[in-house]
Amino acid sequence: MPSPLTLFGLFMLPVFKLQMKIHTVEMSVRTSGKGTYEITDKVTEIIKASGISSGQVSVFVCHTSCSLVVMENADPSARTDLHAFFDRLVPEDTPYFIHTYEGPDDMPSHIRMCLTDVEKTIPILQGAMVLGAWQGIFVFEHRHAAQDRRLVVNVLGK
Amino acid sequence: MPSPLTLFGLFMLPVFKLQMKIHTVEMSVRTSGKGTYEITDKVTEIIKASGISSGQVSVFVCHTSCSLVVMENADPSARTDLHAFFDRLVPEDTPYFIHTYEGPDDMPSHIRMCLTDVEKTIPILQGAMVLGAWQGIFVFEHRHAAQDRRLVVNVLGK
Amino acid sequence: MPSPLTLFGLFMLPVFKLQMKIHTVEMSVRTSGKGTYEITDKVTEIIKASGISSGQVSVFVCHTSCSLVVMENADPSARTDLHAFFDRLVPEDTPYFIHTYEGPDDMPSHIRMCLTDVEKTIPILQGAMVLGAWQGIFVFEHRHAAQDRRLVVNVLGK
Repeated sequence: MPSPLTLFGLFMLPVFKLQMKIHTVEMSVRTSGKGTYEITDKVTEIIKASGISSGQVSVFVCHTSCSLVVMENADPSARTDLHAFFDRLVPEDTPYFIHTYEGPDDMPSHIRMCLTDVEKTIPILQGAMVLGAWQGIFVFEHRHAAQDRRLVVNVLGK
Repeated sequence: MPSPLTLFGLFMLPVFKLQMKIHTVEMSVRTSGKGTYEITDKVTEIIKASGISSGQVSVFVCHTSCSLVVMENADPSARTDLHAFFDRLVPEDTPYFIHTYEGPDDMPSHIRMCLTDVEKTIPILQGAMVLGAWQGIFVFEHRHAAQDRRLVVNVLGK
Repeated sequence: MPSPLTLFGLFMLPVFKLQMKIHTVEMSVRTSGKGTYEITDKVTEIIKASGISSGQVSVFVCHTSCSLVVMENADPSARTDLHAFFDRLVPEDTPYFIHTYEGPDDMPSHIRMCLTDVEKTIPILQGAMVLGAWQGIFVFEHRHAAQDRRLVVNVLGK
């Protein structure tokens, strides 16, 4: 009979292969003014490096003045209109805003963030995100000044 | 002493029972014009089929012109008002939209999707979603034409 | 050679330590009228009690007339402006609303909930949420009357 240690290895092999894993990576995105910045490829690379082939990925942005959107990534004009819409929906010169210490883009950035959210969870099958043909993941920057945005990507699965 | 294989079976039994599982199902929802289409029962069925009794379910829609909402499902008038609100918040005749190749509902559909999001994560306890008394999950269709919408449902837990 | 039971214990030790866990807790939040109520500390306590040091937490609110926001928690004026914005975006005296049985805050509460969502997923590293310096989690109450709000917190990880 093999030694207990050998048995242990043999017994554990299928267990480890079947076990759920979690793979967490922090990443930074440099933005240069208001707009949307695609990060789909970066998230795809993190999923590949994780070795996880089925499960889900959660992306989170650690800020209150930018957000995340899953948006059409084929024709840039869709994002031009998106930016224009949010500029009008939450104008920088809104007269009743009092939280304006950091400039006219301060309060609108928080509200636009709340309306589009700071996190997205996307399913993974066969090692890749199950995104629709035109879906991409974007950091939605609501500040005029350039920023280094910190994100956390959690890949979860087998 | 029993054979290593028998021991393996005995040793693994509690491990497999305790292990987290992930159960992924793709589903299709046929929509027939703008509005909300309840999918709560379909998601409930997928959870039951997974055998997972505690954990969470993530629902994702693979499109940029429809979205998901967790909305009141008792009185349909609540959803009538929801539709009316979004029709006014992002009008089809918005003069500054340039992304209009696919018709007047093209750009409004993307913006309404961004405002309501493409994914929802809901907790599971005792084999069922922990939804409030009036909460249901709906596909929010933003297109006039009939569509086949593709969704991915990820059940995660034990 | 040790008994099979002893071997079982020794073999299982590293497996259980490596295994993903899910820790689900229901909590209640008392609100006293429209506004935002911070729950960051309560979620932090639940994560500590779970013993999970890396993974993610999903918070879900089981209602259709309140929601969850991850919002700036340093200067309260940011939230004052947030409340004011939503009061204007979805006014209580909107003339075309028909779902008004429970008063003028009935339908606006559902729409504000849809715009800000009922769930948030936040990454966990080294036993704590990876929140930005100014990020806090809040229940966004859209009803005038005091309410007991039921939430489910799912901690997932190792």
